[in-house]
Amino acid sequence: MATVIETDALVIGAGPVGLFQVFQLGLQGIKTHVVDVLDVAGGQCIELYADKPIYDIPAVPLCTGRELTHKLLKQIAPFAPAFHFGQQVSALTRQPDGRWQVSTTVNHQLCQEFLTRTVFIAAGVGAFVPKELKIDGLSDFLGRQMFYRLPPLDARVGQQVVVVGGEDAAVANAIALTQDGQAKSVTLVHRRDVLQASTVELEQFAALREAGKLVFQVGQISGICTENALLSAVTVSTADDKTLTLPLDALLVCQGISPKLGPVAHWGLAMARKQLCVSTESFATSEPGIFAVGDVVTYPGKKKLIVCGFHEATMAAFAAAALLDPNASGVLQYTTSSALLQQRLGCQSSV
Amino acid sequence: MATVIETDALVIGAGPVGLFQVFQLGLQGIKTHVVDVLDVAGGQCIELYADKPIYDIPAVPLCTGRELTHKLLKQIAPFAPAFHFGQQVSALTRQPDGRWQVSTTVNHQLCQEFLTRTVFIAAGVGAFVPKELKIDGLSDFLGRQMFYRLPPLDARVGQQVVVVGGEDAAVANAIALTQDGQAKSVTLVHRRDVLQASTVELEQFAALREAGKLVFQVGQISGICTENALLSAVTVSTADDKTLTLPLDALLVCQGISPKLGPVAHWGLAMARKQLCVSTESFATSEPGIFAVGDVVTYPGKKKLIVCGFHEATMAAFAAAALLDPNASGVLQYTTSSALLQQRLGCQSSV
Repeated sequence: MATVIETDALVIGAGPVGLFQVFQLGLQGIKTHVVDVLDVAGGQCIELYADKPIYDIPAVPLCTGRELTHKLLKQIAPFAPAFHFGQQVSALTRQPDGRWQVSTTVNHQLCQEFLTRTVFIAAGVGAFVPKELKIDGLSDFLGRQMFYRLPPLDARVGQQVVVVGGEDAAVANAIALTQDGQAKSVTLVHRRDVLQASTVELEQFAALREAGKLVFQVGQISGICTENALLSAVTVSTADDKTLTLPLDALLVCQGISPKLGPVAHWGLAMARKQLCVSTESFATSEPGIFAVGDVVTYPGKKKLIVCGFHEATMAAFAAAALLDPNASGVLQYTTSSALLQQRLGCQSSV
Repeated sequence: MATVIETDALVIGAGPVGLFQVFQLGLQGIKTHVVDVLDVAGGQCIELYADKPIYDIPAVPLCTGRELTHKLLKQIAPFAPAFHFGQQVSALTRQPDGRWQVSTTVNHQLCQEFLTRTVFIAAGVGAFVPKELKIDGLSDFLGRQMFYRLPPLDARVGQQVVVVGGEDAAVANAIALTQDGQAKSVTLVHRRDVLQASTVELEQFAALREAGKLVFQVGQISGICTENALLSAVTVSTADDKTLTLPLDALLVCQGISPKLGPVAHWGLAMARKQLCVSTESFATSEPGIFAVGDVVTYPGKKKLIVCGFHEATMAAFAAAALLDPNASGVLQYTTSSALLQQRLGCQSSV
């Protein structure tokens, strides 16, 4: 594990609201670390509507989720936040000195520890995690023979791989595994005989089947077989009620992703209907130093809209600044006229 | 006076928050009328920082006040709000049927009446009104011989005009009045011998003085002279303690503008420290059907930032929609995925 990182502010979630939280903290002169379970910034904007239109961001008549993310990344660039991607925050523990110890994991393994004075939970509807394949005993092989992303080279090159799923990611990974120097055999298992992917990928997939490089099996995984503590095969129930056994070295599960509130629910923070209760004055949670903003929070009238999250992040930044430096003046400054804010933004004095 | 206008929603103030209020009401299917004392949309963004940079609008790393206004006008264009510029809302009276009668004035004359089911006060720090020249008896001549904007033709063509002020507007108006077919004589009075205007205008001004077409008098207006109930002259105290008398037909006061909360303070709404008290759940004021958003409101933690006003306008629109149609579902829809919202926005179905 890497050295413990000490910081004033840790933002959990790199969706649009988490990114704007970085911006507002930056204006307050507070540097941030940002953790996200995904490999890139953007949250739902990237996972769910990267190429779909958004019309209700104020003063942005039309943008896609990806464009919104890029605009926000450009805006926060002067504050150079440290991103920690592909990690899920698993534990949050108060230290005797009042700081919070925050641990992240990758594949359930401890990855990074932080000691931070403030935490901003901008976790949206939760971490976007792969939909599980629930088969007794299967999870024992997670990260060794069972994977939710393309397995590491030693688990796929020259191996028999079974892929489960019927959408873009499943089809794309099945194709990738057939390429030279990759898997010995590739079987895609999906419960229906219809696959959802781009026309180009579907054509490529059909050509590979025709060439005998890839097998498509309609059916549902019903069980696993083990041999010498290794996963040796899966059983598949077919539409005509037969059971097949597919020998394998690796199983790749690509059934899509779904948001999961996850560990947040176990941090002892006051919640209502699976959301964090916050003050509309400060967006503080029930624990001192822990703020929450965006879709993860609830308060009277709360609307799950990005525009509201931007406001919440702004208010939380002011409250955190007052907490971190009780002697701060608290006088509201404007980016248009404040030399201090413009200096923090790295602007030339412009007016 | 024009016919009474009946509407569901009236927005007072066409600054950035008022404009976004129009947008959020539009998404709710509610058409709006908008009143502003200025002649154009934009409020402070246009009056105070049209060409100055703003860095803290979310997802807009840099824009000027004018650019922000243009982006918002583009965004609300699908909802085609009816703008009523150059008018100040003077009275707000509850009708027996629960609607609000709203009257506007121009130069203290009744101009337009509205009957509206909801009102959104987005008046910022107040109406930007000309700084008054306070001289006993002078206000009696307002609109006839004393003006805060360029007088109508009959009050300036062939007339002796005195202009008071020392900044851009005063200099520009003095120059305009010297043009062919305009005033018989033009005298600019300013308390200091330094004028603040663009280099081009200052050069033009100097050339006109040299040509004898314009007189610049340093001093302060100290009184007025009347004759047959007409304003006949002003007296000016000069720096060397003399008193001059300047005969005139018209007096143009251009001492800049300043925000004035104005009539809002007299509508019987709950206030604290000159601001309207609102619920953070609905942004409702103490009177049913009247909402308030932006810099004019106060609540615990309130920050006078545009990003907060955008949130407030959003919340107010939801609350107003529920009030206007108690049978509405209230289910949150997204512009990215809702066919209804996209239809209201005039988009082709895009996904």
